[in-house]
Amino acid sequence: MNTTNFPGEGAAGWRPIDGGVGAPQGFWATGVMAGVKYQNKYDIALIFSEQPAQAAGVYTRNLVKAHPLLLTQKHLANGQAQAIVVNSGNANACMGPQGDEAAAAMARSTAAELGLAPEDVVVASTGVIGVPLPVERVQAGIVAAARELRELAGKDNERAEAAHQAALAIMTTDTTVKEVAYELPLAGGTVRLGGIAKGSGMIHPNMGTMLGFLTTDAAVPASRLQELLREAAEESFNMVTVDGDTSTNDMVVVLANGCSGISPQGAEWQQFAGMVKAACVDLAQMIARDGEGASKFLEVTVQGAASLASARQIARSICGSSLVKAAMFGEDANWGRILAAAGYSGAEFDPTKADIYLGHVQVAQAGQGLPFSEEEAKKVLAAKDIKVLLELHDGQAAATAWGCDLTHEYVTINGKYRT
Amino acid sequence: MNTTNFPGEGAAGWRPIDGGVGAPQGFWATGVMAGVKYQNKYDIALIFSEQPAQAAGVYTRNLVKAHPLLLTQKHLANGQAQAIVVNSGNANACMGPQGDEAAAAMARSTAAELGLAPEDVVVASTGVIGVPLPVERVQAGIVAAARELRELAGKDNERAEAAHQAALAIMTTDTTVKEVAYELPLAGGTVRLGGIAKGSGMIHPNMGTMLGFLTTDAAVPASRLQELLREAAEESFNMVTVDGDTSTNDMVVVLANGCSGISPQGAEWQQFAGMVKAACVDLAQMIARDGEGASKFLEVTVQGAASLASARQIARSICGSSLVKAAMFGEDANWGRILAAAGYSGAEFDPTKADIYLGHVQVAQAGQGLPFSEEEAKKVLAAKDIKVLLELHDGQAAATAWGCDLTHEYVTINGKYRT
Repeated sequence: MNTTNFPGEGAAGWRPIDGGVGAPQGFWATGVMAGVKYQNKYDIALIFSEQPAQAAGVYTRNLVKAHPLLLTQKHLANGQAQAIVVNSGNANACMGPQGDEAAAAMARSTAAELGLAPEDVVVASTGVIGVPLPVERVQAGIVAAARELRELAGKDNERAEAAHQAALAIMTTDTTVKEVAYELPLAGGTVRLGGIAKGSGMIHPNMGTMLGFLTTDAAVPASRLQELLREAAEESFNMVTVDGDTSTNDMVVVLANGCSGISPQGAEWQQFAGMVKAACVDLAQMIARDGEGASKFLEVTVQGAASLASARQIARSICGSSLVKAAMFGEDANWGRILAAAGYSGAEFDPTKADIYLGHVQVAQAGQGLPFSEEEAKKVLAAKDIKVLLELHDGQAAATAWGCDLTHEYVTINGKYRT
Repeated sequence: MNTTNFPGEGAAGWRPIDGGVGAPQGFWATGVMAGVKYQNKYDIALIFSEQPAQAAGVYTRNLVKAHPLLLTQKHLANGQAQAIVVNSGNANACMGPQGDEAAAAMARSTAAELGLAPEDVVVASTGVIGVPLPVERVQAGIVAAARELRELAGKDNERAEAAHQAALAIMTTDTTVKEVAYELPLAGGTVRLGGIAKGSGMIHPNMGTMLGFLTTDAAVPASRLQELLREAAEESFNMVTVDGDTSTNDMVVVLANGCSGISPQGAEWQQFAGMVKAACVDLAQMIARDGEGASKFLEVTVQGAASLASARQIARSICGSSLVKAAMFGEDANWGRILAAAGYSGAEFDPTKADIYLGHVQVAQAGQGLPFSEEEAKKVLAAKDIKVLLELHDGQAAATAWGCDLTHEYVTINGKYRT
């Protein structure tokens, strides 16, 4: 039995490297401590491309959208950007005209420091909703970050560490840094890709409080980049669920500055696209693994579905079920909850054909419980990583969703977030 | 400001009485301990009508349906029933032909003991999924319950206590008994209504693991009864959310045996319908209040919505948000989460017109935060009952949803449910 079904698995050719979003040629990144909400916390991230970059973004589908997100959508309408500025500690959401002005001020400061047009700046924020952004502290942070970027010139050995600070600066209740970088050798030379993300609570399909920023030195037209990002997000970030809530602020943006001089085509495009998707899946898994209060990582694969949409819907429903998540926390092989969560997903399937596996242990066949070794099941559930497979025997489509268990710690974190 | 909007509030004429589902004329009910899962726990409930009753039911919309539920749907197709048998401790779900046979055996035993056709028996189960129902113990319990009903004849002072045991017998992780009874004086005499319910975890719109049974001695044709039950369930049971999961087993059934000799018409029908809805809202609120691990009762009212469907969708989304629920547990006035949960409900509205109140404290206006007294907000949130009001200024529709906070105890209960 094959319980995993990673998008991009089996594809290959790229290899991990250091350097995060600063790894691709022509990109510089850093993070500084500006005291937005806390002292001694990196909270302003700045990413700069030496050349104007082609740009694409995907955004929260929440009806309530934060001010920086609305500004970024406008700025990316022409498919071009050259810098990304992010603050953590304040969402700059639900603040009216004052919030729009605060987001615009972030773009203006960044543009002035880096010698760009404000329209070429991507602005993002994450943190508490409905509290005024401390604009002066944020602007001072942008000035400091830009200075650090200038000071990096010629110091190649410090670039990776600086880029790592950008990854630190976008974190909120995250407990781990989410950062990847790859390089892909192609016929004409090497293409690089870097990515950072933040996740933790409120993560759910459709970009629930999640930020992701990708950089690449490949040359890719904005329209193609947009299509690729949308596909990649569908099978990565949108397959992560921590608590079913979605946020006002979240976005994933990719910049492609072409500094490698390579524009992947044909089979090389497929390799490049595979690398982008793999990076998104990596970041998505890191987000799921670091769900607020999580003690376990949950991977739910639905196979044999009638359509990809059904497979995704069912996998997300199981992964997001409070009862399934609490059972995983308790290491209780309560497979009935898995089938029940599939049943209320909204997708059509025939429950009397469904097989269920917990790790390698089959617990249900054709919609009915099987006698299984509680001891073996306990071993599967005692592990930090738990794989669940639902085989529907309804078609050929498959999808995987990632999440985490529901713990006492989640409740504690979210009972006191604002204060 | 008016924060409450109880369906049926203000209507009147009925008054509470004792006796639960045994209160209406011609109904007898009891519960016994059959050791289905635990010893010394009432776990078989039996409700019997002296006369064949008109009957209506609403059922879970989960694609995965338990065996007793499928049987009951068949039995109620003709709109008639004369007894209800329920076991707790085992859901009799996902068991294949063996499960169908177990449900049929419950109907046959009940019919044999009470001298009815099996098709006139409503069967319901609640408990763990995927474990064989201990049919012999259940049948022995049915025999014992039927004997108790016969022994009640002539002992009117024991009827209420016996009916109360039926309410006890349908409980699982419930910590409180959910039981109501009303009488309504009409021109031709008095009509009575009784109801019991079970709830706790897994409660959500569309009948998530919830059982409800109503009895009335009014004469109401099955088709009219069905329409009334559907309306009543929409604004009561379907507006309760505890954890977003829905179940395989849940149903609400009403029997009307006509023993009062009264068939309410016109204005009296409106009164009768109001009483049925009020009973359903009472039971729904008891369920929300007793959500697994709940420490607080949450009432979310959405006013000024463009449509009733939108108002309900938004109210349920807020009430079901893990982040809102955890904030209520932590007594944190994090109103941004309320607006965000409205934003991902799927209903259309204009967030820049939305006002938000926590109890009497307005915390946001036109989609933006207001300066408010943290002290006053703390007082509101420190109470056991918390009311949230979202005024959309988008139309005339309003709806109220009920739920509870998300607590450490919820996680504990659901981590160990099966064992």
